[in-house]
Amino acid sequence: MTSSATTLKGQPLDKGVLDNILRRRLFYTPSFEIYGGVGGLYDYGPPGCSLQANIVDVWRKHFILEEDMLEVDTTVLTPHEVLKTSGHVDKFADWMCKDPKNGDILRADHFVEAILEARLNGNKEARGLKIEEKEEDPKKKKRKAKAEAVKLEDAVVQEYEEVLAKIDNYGGPELGELIKKYDLRNPLTGIQPSEPVAFNLMFQTSIGPSSNLAGFLRPETAQGQFLNFAKLLEFNQSQMPFASACIGKSYRNEISPRAGLLRVREFLMAEIEHYVDPEGGKKHTRFHEVKDVELVLLDRDTQLSGKTDTKKIKIGEAVESGLVDNETLGYFIARIYLFMRRIGIDESKMRFRQHMANEMAHYACDCWDCELFTTGGWIECVGCADRSAYDLTVHANKTGAPLVVRERREEPLVIEEWQIDIEKKKFGPLFKKDAKTVEAALEATSQEQREKLAKELSETGKITLEVAGVADGKVQVAKDSITIEFRKRVENTREYTPNVIEPSFGIGRILYSLMEHCFWTRGTDGGDEARGVLSFPPTVAPTKVLIVPLSSNEKFKPLLKTLSQRLRTTGISNRIDDSSATIGKRYSRNDELGTPLGITIDFQTVQDGTLTLRDRDSTTQVRADEDKIIEAIKSLVEGNKTWADIEAELPKFEGQEVEVVSR
Amino acid sequence: MTSSATTLKGQPLDKGVLDNILRRRLFYTPSFEIYGGVGGLYDYGPPGCSLQANIVDVWRKHFILEEDMLEVDTTVLTPHEVLKTSGHVDKFADWMCKDPKNGDILRADHFVEAILEARLNGNKEARGLKIEEKEEDPKKKKRKAKAEAVKLEDAVVQEYEEVLAKIDNYGGPELGELIKKYDLRNPLTGIQPSEPVAFNLMFQTSIGPSSNLAGFLRPETAQGQFLNFAKLLEFNQSQMPFASACIGKSYRNEISPRAGLLRVREFLMAEIEHYVDPEGGKKHTRFHEVKDVELVLLDRDTQLSGKTDTKKIKIGEAVESGLVDNETLGYFIARIYLFMRRIGIDESKMRFRQHMANEMAHYACDCWDCELFTTGGWIECVGCADRSAYDLTVHANKTGAPLVVRERREEPLVIEEWQIDIEKKKFGPLFKKDAKTVEAALEATSQEQREKLAKELSETGKITLEVAGVADGKVQVAKDSITIEFRKRVENTREYTPNVIEPSFGIGRILYSLMEHCFWTRGTDGGDEARGVLSFPPTVAPTKVLIVPLSSNEKFKPLLKTLSQRLRTTGISNRIDDSSATIGKRYSRNDELGTPLGITIDFQTVQDGTLTLRDRDSTTQVRADEDKIIEAIKSLVEGNKTWADIEAELPKFEGQEVEVVSR
Repeated sequence: MTSSATTLKGQPLDKGVLDNILRRRLFYTPSFEIYGGVGGLYDYGPPGCSLQANIVDVWRKHFILEEDMLEVDTTVLTPHEVLKTSGHVDKFADWMCKDPKNGDILRADHFVEAILEARLNGNKEARGLKIEEKEEDPKKKKRKAKAEAVKLEDAVVQEYEEVLAKIDNYGGPELGELIKKYDLRNPLTGIQPSEPVAFNLMFQTSIGPSSNLAGFLRPETAQGQFLNFAKLLEFNQSQMPFASACIGKSYRNEISPRAGLLRVREFLMAEIEHYVDPEGGKKHTRFHEVKDVELVLLDRDTQLSGKTDTKKIKIGEAVESGLVDNETLGYFIARIYLFMRRIGIDESKMRFRQHMANEMAHYACDCWDCELFTTGGWIECVGCADRSAYDLTVHANKTGAPLVVRERREEPLVIEEWQIDIEKKKFGPLFKKDAKTVEAALEATSQEQREKLAKELSETGKITLEVAGVADGKVQVAKDSITIEFRKRVENTREYTPNVIEPSFGIGRILYSLMEHCFWTRGTDGGDEARGVLSFPPTVAPTKVLIVPLSSNEKFKPLLKTLSQRLRTTGISNRIDDSSATIGKRYSRNDELGTPLGITIDFQTVQDGTLTLRDRDSTTQVRADEDKIIEAIKSLVEGNKTWADIEAELPKFEGQEVEVVSR
Repeated sequence: MTSSATTLKGQPLDKGVLDNILRRRLFYTPSFEIYGGVGGLYDYGPPGCSLQANIVDVWRKHFILEEDMLEVDTTVLTPHEVLKTSGHVDKFADWMCKDPKNGDILRADHFVEAILEARLNGNKEARGLKIEEKEEDPKKKKRKAKAEAVKLEDAVVQEYEEVLAKIDNYGGPELGELIKKYDLRNPLTGIQPSEPVAFNLMFQTSIGPSSNLAGFLRPETAQGQFLNFAKLLEFNQSQMPFASACIGKSYRNEISPRAGLLRVREFLMAEIEHYVDPEGGKKHTRFHEVKDVELVLLDRDTQLSGKTDTKKIKIGEAVESGLVDNETLGYFIARIYLFMRRIGIDESKMRFRQHMANEMAHYACDCWDCELFTTGGWIECVGCADRSAYDLTVHANKTGAPLVVRERREEPLVIEEWQIDIEKKKFGPLFKKDAKTVEAALEATSQEQREKLAKELSETGKITLEVAGVADGKVQVAKDSITIEFRKRVENTREYTPNVIEPSFGIGRILYSLMEHCFWTRGTDGGDEARGVLSFPPTVAPTKVLIVPLSSNEKFKPLLKTLSQRLRTTGISNRIDDSSATIGKRYSRNDELGTPLGITIDFQTVQDGTLTLRDRDSTTQVRADEDKIIEAIKSLVEGNKTWADIEAELPKFEGQEVEVVSR
């Protein structure tokens, strides 16, 4: 788990080098930087913005279009009452401690984790062992305390490691106990921070001119989807199961957001709420399509035993053995895996980790996170939770809205039961103002009580019933105003609250992890500095094609423009670079931007219209006429062919352009 | 101006009927409706969400891709300091009055407008004239006071009409005077509301756990773009002019947002910041492409004279005559017009209105709104403002960041001027600790002063200079420690702050107006109720194709699935409707959803693979094999062909399917 992050080619990944490229090429940049910046807020520049749009586009095709999900766009502003009902006002919080001396605010779990890891490292140093550094752990960047090289008892080392393996399972009071038990102190002041208190992570505001309607920025898109459940079911012509989906910004007022794109306060989410009948084992009709997909899983029990061993297993077997609770949950876990592979995530750096009991959100009954390995360790990028009927039930109870499915039963349900009929004409005058109370008491009787009452009625001609607040607490009803019989009732409609399986994607975290997974450095023969490359798959790459003229010759200009326009009409984003830099330099710049393909226009192009097409990763080239080259680009961008396919189809080209120019 | 809104076919537009369809078909729905809703917040259901995505997609192609704009994604959360500098904290406000009796909060301009219009209607009623009703004016829905039928003097009528024509030009104090002058009273209480006070329209929150960083939800995306100006210029390899663009949510805490999608508190914006050299008349290299585009304009002077007469004029002429200030502003106005036509806006319901001086935002020096006519009157949907160098200048002044362009001059600028050289070795010891102060005083002298000093120096061998705080306020400098000469200086670099032309689109308002412009009702021969149709162009329609089987025959099922999958792979959204409703009913449903095309699969399809394709608007059909039908759909959706083209190419089909089914 604590091995170091590597590049696409297995080189040690230097986060500093990568971050330098990402900022220089404007993939992302701290927001409001000329004002000193604000923690946890980042802007995407053109390549980051385009990469994000392409990831979202693949997501939409892979999930929404593939399964006819109902996409909605709901508001970020959410009134207090909704999030009170959903439990977020009371429970959506992190535990924070305060240093009483300097006022430092610390996230309790990150603080405990940082100090214990520092002590473990200090122990290794004292024993002369190699320390495997995580280069930048988002959870503890600021607190990265260098503990002294102090040797620990073996038993203590084991204890610390077990605490760390289940760190996400501790609540505030337990974290407070750990701080006291191990005497954990803020390295900056040398004193113990205060007892952890809950800090709600929602941004608050007020809606309207009179400031009396409290509201929040939503912490997830889910609630807006749940509240529209009844309308969406109707829109879906009452067919079950179905899913809604929403792509939009959500907000969390993180306590210490100092870690680039991995822990931010404003982020793009893509969430699916799949509604399923809780009866019948939550089967999924397309589960057979994915059952052989192999996944790396880290289950709850392993973590609770203080370990982090994973197992590789087919999702079909995981569901069958009960490791993953049901087919629908399993189906989405497999679909998440396939999506990740499609956008270029390195599958050797992906695992699914099950939440431990105390770690789960207040609404979930089971949850698997898709985690990606980065320089920040294993990062939760997608949560796949079974929210059961929690949300629909609490909103229905609060508002009285029927958030249920009503289905005609194929075979009517026949129920035999004791039923009470009241002869209103006699019953009313008998009890006058108490009639309703007595009637309610009768309705509230159980089947067992009714059976006894029926016997009493037939044997004595009347019943005696305890009714609090009426007469002396007991009333008598004679058989002329009541009948109790064992009869059949037929129910043609079934009513149930669906369960919700929720795959929830943090697009920014996926985007950042993808940048790390696609990064590598190209060595140069001449001993120059290694050059960075971002090997995005053509489907998600920000720009697909770089067009360069061999030289600044005027003859090339109209050809550049026509080609660029033709590619654009075909839906292929491209850039012309006719600057005075060498072709080599221009390709280097585009390696850093992750542009997968390059076209050179040279004198032969002017003569016969043929173009060379260059592959970023191998730097090999092919040459063919414009139609064939565009056809090749299209199939690469759509993900239907690989560069190896293209090389097999089109004639190889081994030109000398770069040298010609740099002479 | 006050004529009533009509449908696409010129029928009177019944907003109630349209709204009923839009809500029933889930184009949009009030957010949090089961909790009673929150004013000004709406969710888009699947068709609204898809329509919005398609409009944004056309926008991105029409503007960003067409002109290689730099798209960015910046944060909504914005710290106080940024919006203080930009002027929004002090000036981004509406004027509101309070009714002292019942506490009603009224937007001052809307209140004045509503009461005066009510009186004008009362006058018409008293004179027995027809009252042209705006069916629902978003500006005054709540306050729609029915004034009594009281006849007004002709002069008073004229005065009221003049006030209304320039209502947007009044500030708070002036609105207060109008309320007193005309004794305007809240119809609900019969008393005059209080003096107007400014109400800031930004939602406030605080960022971080210690609650000490005040922030707002951005009221526009522009500021995030301006703050990245220097980085974007560098990304653009220092080339000018260029534009950045941002599509994202913005927020305004409207005082009275009761008007469906036209005045909401959370909305999607698409904004362009085009940076242009302020020198050379703000020319645009592609202006010639649009110069003959004819537009309907309502200029500033016409409005100030109390009229609303428009003129139709070519944009080339408008720029030439100075009516529109410059080519770049004119270019974007024309491009906005072309965009609106492309998505299906009725050009007879579109005009460009120039802002009056007091109406303009605090940052703008000229502004033209693209207004669309709806049941709510003329609605501002796009603002096209010349923000000059306002924003870049204030942010640069506040932060010291160089938000400027540095350009190598093609021809170096030669400046002849009086220059002062100081002989430091003598000058320093002469003034000791005051040397820097005296030097600064010398540097601060004007050219005129220097000329005089030079004369004094050559004539007397020394100069006398007033320097506050040094000696007795006067110092003498002899010619051995100073030289003053008239010399040439060569400047190779030019530095300037670019001006910004900003087209700013409210996507929600455009979307709503489009729904009105595309709406009409289809009469039925049999005297049934008229049926609603939303004739969206195929390019923006939420779903492109409805696929229906002729009957529930099992033979059709695999064909439906294969066809749907093939269309999806081609990027054409489609829905199968194999419900038990008649084909006629299924088409009716899809008329309301705005689905432009329908495919029927019948027994002939099973035999020979041919399909029928039906056009929503004409209800005529053609029949051909699958390849030809898909080719036809593709060209319709891409906007390359019209239905008339398809009818001319493919054999007409006049089948009897509907009758067969309904028999």
